[in-house]
Amino acid sequence: MLSQLELGHVCVVLVRARNPSNIGAVARAMYDFGFSRLRVVNEFPVPFEAARSAVDASEVLAGATLYANLAEAVADCTLVVGTTAVGERDLQHELLPLAEAAPRIRAELQHSEASRVALLFGSEKTGLSNEELSHCNWLLTIPMCTHEDARHPSMNLGQAVAVCLYELAREQQRSTQDDQAVMNEAPSVAVAPPAASLERITELLLQVMEKTGYDHRYPHNCDPAQVRRLVRRIGMDAVDAPVWMGILRQILWKLGGQ
Amino acid sequence: MLSQLELGHVCVVLVRARNPSNIGAVARAMYDFGFSRLRVVNEFPVPFEAARSAVDASEVLAGATLYANLAEAVADCTLVVGTTAVGERDLQHELLPLAEAAPRIRAELQHSEASRVALLFGSEKTGLSNEELSHCNWLLTIPMCTHEDARHPSMNLGQAVAVCLYELAREQQRSTQDDQAVMNEAPSVAVAPPAASLERITELLLQVMEKTGYDHRYPHNCDPAQVRRLVRRIGMDAVDAPVWMGILRQILWKLGGQ
Repeated sequence: MLSQLELGHVCVVLVRARNPSNIGAVARAMYDFGFSRLRVVNEFPVPFEAARSAVDASEVLAGATLYANLAEAVADCTLVVGTTAVGERDLQHELLPLAEAAPRIRAELQHSEASRVALLFGSEKTGLSNEELSHCNWLLTIPMCTHEDARHPSMNLGQAVAVCLYELAREQQRSTQDDQAVMNEAPSVAVAPPAASLERITELLLQVMEKTGYDHRYPHNCDPAQVRRLVRRIGMDAVDAPVWMGILRQILWKLGGQ
Repeated sequence: MLSQLELGHVCVVLVRARNPSNIGAVARAMYDFGFSRLRVVNEFPVPFEAARSAVDASEVLAGATLYANLAEAVADCTLVVGTTAVGERDLQHELLPLAEAAPRIRAELQHSEASRVALLFGSEKTGLSNEELSHCNWLLTIPMCTHEDARHPSMNLGQAVAVCLYELAREQQRSTQDDQAVMNEAPSVAVAPPAASLERITELLLQVMEKTGYDHRYPHNCDPAQVRRLVRRIGMDAVDAPVWMGILRQILWKLGGQ
């Protein structure tokens, strides 16, 4: 589980990202999952203004820093992890699928207060170059589907960052879930009604079958034991049982008035 | 572990998505993770052409189908799961964080060859409406960071879909254990009826409520969305659905004869 402090020790480093709306999407995903430190490596000025229009991303973008080269951008980091789509090149690095990479990154962050982790993403078109990959301790990849035409799909930059940060923050979700569990219990967790309620519903349903002539039309469906099983097969919430009884009673009342 | 066949039994349903580039991003994420069935619910024609420019998404977009309403779009589905950002509204449904929702969806897919799962995403601005949520069996949410200003972040549509599909396709090795655990929890469940049957039962029940005067006596129980949820809460077997429809039709026939 990553603390707020540890989340703050992760840098997302975009190398040669070209599209301002992608940078905006990256910033938004960072904001969504609680990350804040964005670094952009580019040889030319980045149009942050265009990216700043991205919803919810303003805080992250306001704090973003621009670097002229990758070495500077990761200088203070104790672990540098590159992201790559597999199959594109001869990898000289250890490569982990994201689900295995995330716990290793969390372990590094929790290892020491001085830990700083950089997560590198390459340009939309070419990914990270071999030179850029050489700055990394190891690499991670998001496992994707290999299609019949043997093309390796590549991910949209904003989506790739969102998936990686989701996985990194993932374990932390367990704790928040506990808080939410109480909230959810009311509408969600089904409590079965007592047998007496199910039996009452069965009786009412049998009466409806008789009064409507259903039992003449479908006699094979109307054996009381069969109807009892039918009612028990519906996984009914206890809170709903009175509603169903009310509906059946209203039907009988209406039919009785004839 | 989801097979190719099972991946093909998942429909991603976009409800009132407005931005073609978002639809393109969704299609690309689907392609990346091996999903293929895209359904779009919109009252007006969708500019698929604009979305088709999205890289790698052409196959998915070519097979996308357009629906005028949500009920039709999920009619053949045995499980309908809505996605929501928490905190926005009073939820009437069971709500699971994505990491817990995914094994449950996989269990449904592996349960029967007739299983079809719809994953619903609302419009970029408003998400799914309460009426739209009422078509769902339960809901999932992507846990996000709550910020100090107490604003609940919302995710970019393309990123939300990418994260959900990543998690669904995620545990190719470990998933079998998780799936079995969930499946055993509900030992009695046979095959769920398709959404179209539940919708038909909802319609019949609403007619019964009206014809019997139940709607005058208990108007607070008769909102269509509420009745739809009531019907979805009963965990009904597919084989029983025609029986319930037959009973309701017989009631209506009898009432109509007055």
